[in-house]
Amino acid sequence: MSEQKATNITWHEGSVTRDEREKLLGQKGVTVWMTGLSASGKSTIAVILEQMLLHMKKHAYRLDGDNIRMGLNKNLGFSAEDRAENIRRIGEVARLFTDAGVIAITSFISPYRKDRDAVRASMKSGEFIEVYVNVSLETAEMRDPKGLYKKARAGQIKGFTGIDDPYEAPEKAEIVIETEKTKPEDAAKQILSHLERGGYLRA
Amino acid sequence: MSEQKATNITWHEGSVTRDEREKLLGQKGVTVWMTGLSASGKSTIAVILEQMLLHMKKHAYRLDGDNIRMGLNKNLGFSAEDRAENIRRIGEVARLFTDAGVIAITSFISPYRKDRDAVRASMKSGEFIEVYVNVSLETAEMRDPKGLYKKARAGQIKGFTGIDDPYEAPEKAEIVIETEKTKPEDAAKQILSHLERGGYLRA
Repeated sequence: MSEQKATNITWHEGSVTRDEREKLLGQKGVTVWMTGLSASGKSTIAVILEQMLLHMKKHAYRLDGDNIRMGLNKNLGFSAEDRAENIRRIGEVARLFTDAGVIAITSFISPYRKDRDAVRASMKSGEFIEVYVNVSLETAEMRDPKGLYKKARAGQIKGFTGIDDPYEAPEKAEIVIETEKTKPEDAAKQILSHLERGGYLRA
Repeated sequence: MSEQKATNITWHEGSVTRDEREKLLGQKGVTVWMTGLSASGKSTIAVILEQMLLHMKKHAYRLDGDNIRMGLNKNLGFSAEDRAENIRRIGEVARLFTDAGVIAITSFISPYRKDRDAVRASMKSGEFIEVYVNVSLETAEMRDPKGLYKKARAGQIKGFTGIDDPYEAPEKAEIVIETEKTKPEDAAKQILSHLERGGYLRA
């Protein structure tokens, strides 16, 4: 298709539909919601998945602490209320990206079932793919790449998931990744296969 | 960069860059921020612009009251503090879409210069294109498609922009649209030409 120039552009009544955006991108909008303990490997898998999608010419975008915590959610703390609001906002942004036709990949601990289920409920069936990145607390503590578990054990961080705040594992995750038996690139492929089988990688 | 090959998918260390996303999409991420009185024609122009971009195979996404007010910002009211937070969050979402390589088009009254300038300051130079959709209060009130000005004049809506709350016109908007002399499709083309000249429609 040759590109049209601004001067001879046509338009019709009504907004661009999601279907039109998806046809343009050759994919379907969806949210891949990774949940799991700190150091479970969520971000590592998300980064690889995003890359694999790019190589398949698919438009994906990752939402994670790096681009959310100091931006959209910088005015939130760690109270129960703020934690719920944190996940709610991330869910709303993921929903917008999904509506835009993008494959949104979120990697947040998102420890509470109620908060994750609220995000799921805000989307249409099939738009929310929950990926449980399962790791034992022992392994996560052993990995501890940022020394956070150590600090939590020493009481320097309060309300740390797995130590003095609960992690509620998903009961109906679409994908479960057993990180102690699965290499990150194989985990990413596991998610990719799910997306392929589900028809998300074509319009 | 260390590359690994596995089946037919390759990946390398590190995240997908914005540049890679933009190359995939054949465009540059940018925020087109429309500001103006209620009934100035922001949404009408935004809808046409989005369509024209789609016809040029460009990926645009509109943020407006329909997909923000009942979602991300449903817990905000109309206090001065909440109005600022409303624009801040919209700005942060626009920034994420811009980083994703999308042409984000926002259409909100966004009456306060300070709030708009804060969004501008949060982005890199050239990423924020302010479009002042200029209309006289008289014309806006005459149009009044939703009967909002009438209600505001009757005191049924408080703090309505232009009636009992100020609209602070941009002083350094990249684009000014004189809606009383310009058809919406010509206004959209005016923005499109700016995007073309600025190199946003190629990677």
